[in-house]
Amino acid sequence: MLTDRIRQFLDSRRFDGPVVVVDREVVRENYEAFARALPDTRIYYAVKANPAPEILELLAGLGSNFDTASVTEIRQVLAAGASPDRISYGNTIKKERDIATAFELGVDLFAVDAVEEVEKVARAAPGARVFCRVLTDGEGAEWPLSRKFGCTADMAITVLEHAHRLGLQARGVSFHVGSQQNDLGAWDKALELSAYVFQTLAERGIRLSMVNMGGGFPARYLKEIPGVMDYAGAIFGALRKHFGNRLPETIIEPGRGMVGNAGVIRSEVVLISKKAADDDKRWVYLDIGKFGGLAETMDEAIRYPIRTRHDGGATGDCVIAGPTCDSADVLYEKAPYALPISLEIGDEVLIESTGAYTTTYSAVQFNGFAPLASYVI
Amino acid sequence: MLTDRIRQFLDSRRFDGPVVVVDREVVRENYEAFARALPDTRIYYAVKANPAPEILELLAGLGSNFDTASVTEIRQVLAAGASPDRISYGNTIKKERDIATAFELGVDLFAVDAVEEVEKVARAAPGARVFCRVLTDGEGAEWPLSRKFGCTADMAITVLEHAHRLGLQARGVSFHVGSQQNDLGAWDKALELSAYVFQTLAERGIRLSMVNMGGGFPARYLKEIPGVMDYAGAIFGALRKHFGNRLPETIIEPGRGMVGNAGVIRSEVVLISKKAADDDKRWVYLDIGKFGGLAETMDEAIRYPIRTRHDGGATGDCVIAGPTCDSADVLYEKAPYALPISLEIGDEVLIESTGAYTTTYSAVQFNGFAPLASYVI
Repeated sequence: MLTDRIRQFLDSRRFDGPVVVVDREVVRENYEAFARALPDTRIYYAVKANPAPEILELLAGLGSNFDTASVTEIRQVLAAGASPDRISYGNTIKKERDIATAFELGVDLFAVDAVEEVEKVARAAPGARVFCRVLTDGEGAEWPLSRKFGCTADMAITVLEHAHRLGLQARGVSFHVGSQQNDLGAWDKALELSAYVFQTLAERGIRLSMVNMGGGFPARYLKEIPGVMDYAGAIFGALRKHFGNRLPETIIEPGRGMVGNAGVIRSEVVLISKKAADDDKRWVYLDIGKFGGLAETMDEAIRYPIRTRHDGGATGDCVIAGPTCDSADVLYEKAPYALPISLEIGDEVLIESTGAYTTTYSAVQFNGFAPLASYVI
Repeated sequence: MLTDRIRQFLDSRRFDGPVVVVDREVVRENYEAFARALPDTRIYYAVKANPAPEILELLAGLGSNFDTASVTEIRQVLAAGASPDRISYGNTIKKERDIATAFELGVDLFAVDAVEEVEKVARAAPGARVFCRVLTDGEGAEWPLSRKFGCTADMAITVLEHAHRLGLQARGVSFHVGSQQNDLGAWDKALELSAYVFQTLAERGIRLSMVNMGGGFPARYLKEIPGVMDYAGAIFGALRKHFGNRLPETIIEPGRGMVGNAGVIRSEVVLISKKAADDDKRWVYLDIGKFGGLAETMDEAIRYPIRTRHDGGATGDCVIAGPTCDSADVLYEKAPYALPISLEIGDEVLIESTGAYTTTYSAVQFNGFAPLASYVI
């Protein structure tokens, strides 16, 4: 959302190319909303959503924990002032030498989803804590998950038993219901699977203690979405239903939900044209596109709110595209986007809810365009 | 292709992450093959395919011209030693201030596809040469083009007349039959449209002189493709058919065709696992994926040849995925890829024909992973 602070910052400078501006105060409010809604759940911020040092420092100061995908992210979190016991190495795909480096840095909590990965962890980080990711189907998510991460619940039982046998601490399970998950029932199904893994292993003498409920907490894009309190209620209800009075320790990993709505991209209209004299749609070309930070428009999955100085006037359908010489660099085409008729070349365009998954997705120099510039204010 | 020089280079070093290695000798051979096959056509290398300084210097020395997408690419070409008269600013989507900068740097050849763009060029680069991009349907291309670039032939006539009226030099038309275009007839159709624009404008007193036939010259991926000489024959035949004895000056803009087969990516197997005990497919996770340089596997459009030390042995179907915590970072899933059964975690994997559209597509730091390292030898 466009806060007064972001508006003032944008008005105080001139920009030659696209920029994203993130308002720290919104990130703080998001953190506090999660902490209030789920007081017994530990928050692990998904660093990949936006690893800007100012954001990591803010969250470290607020007491957040951190979910990391690589050794580089672990080092960024440590540099922001968090101790290694607040870090989870949450990527299920790790080189053995990276596991060893993380362990040397003090990290001892690792995600796994295969016996092959457990063996790497047992060699490179003996005695460490592990949790196993379980496959859920991700239905209802706007940015659907494939089967890339996780394994079936039965396989998770095998994986955690194997970890236990190799001297690791089998701690629990994780799941991820899909990013931008709008169906509250998705958590219920995943928690049911989790309880099954807990119970089966308990019968074999292995006591799990932790459920990592992942992310999937939506930011506010174009559609109305349930608020954090609604999510909290649904999740708590499902926990009681499947675990009874023996509630496990719980973890969540919000990324988009923590920083998505805190950021706004300022872009510029480079060209508005038609393909033929009788074309019924305008083509609007911006100075940012799929390779400049808006990768999540892939398959038109995420529809960002767009604001212009002409808002409120008459609108007409547009195809919106990026500035590169790549024909795949089109943001919205199958479902055209209505923009003001009076929009002009050179106009500023504000793309809201772009604080997550924009800066780091940005290509290093595609077509010679610089990566997305980022400011945290 | 894996040349002896690339193999020796790879064997002489240790790599911690993925690298692409491009063999300059293959680029040289490709340039010479184009020059031999189309002696009367000027070659404009599409810099966006791979802007490595060593490649630009090699091609500048061989006499190539350059197709650029941005002011940054123009500066890179000038730094490589080519004079500005050998540069085309081929992006149809340009900020007016970027047109002015290019013109100050000596560039005076610009692509347009709309009257709105012509007006920018007329203001920022008075008297410059322009050519108008015409829409073709791109059927038969493995990496299909949308309607993002170009306009209808009738609109192109309007655009070029408008340029003429504003004091620009209306030089001709361009088209792009689609990258990896395997259907030789696609050029025929595009040249027929071009001849129609030439003839209509000639009747109105405007003499065009140039046809820019774009790129679309395939590199050798998995499928057998027609060789450069076959392309040359088909194109020359179509030119004669549609322009008779008044052959226009011609330009081609090979990018992938110049550097694609000159490069090999060296990657490492990070994990091989199954999702369930009875899974019939292995999941093979590499240390490079969609966000690390293999963006062109989007929709599994391009199927790169993959070599391992186990080639020749029994194979089995795999899903191949990248190393990031992003479920969209899967390379081949819908059409599984057969890899050797004996492939192991830690093995080297060579991905061939990756000299084009890899380094620059690479994300700046997604999940904390560094952009693809690049060597030109």
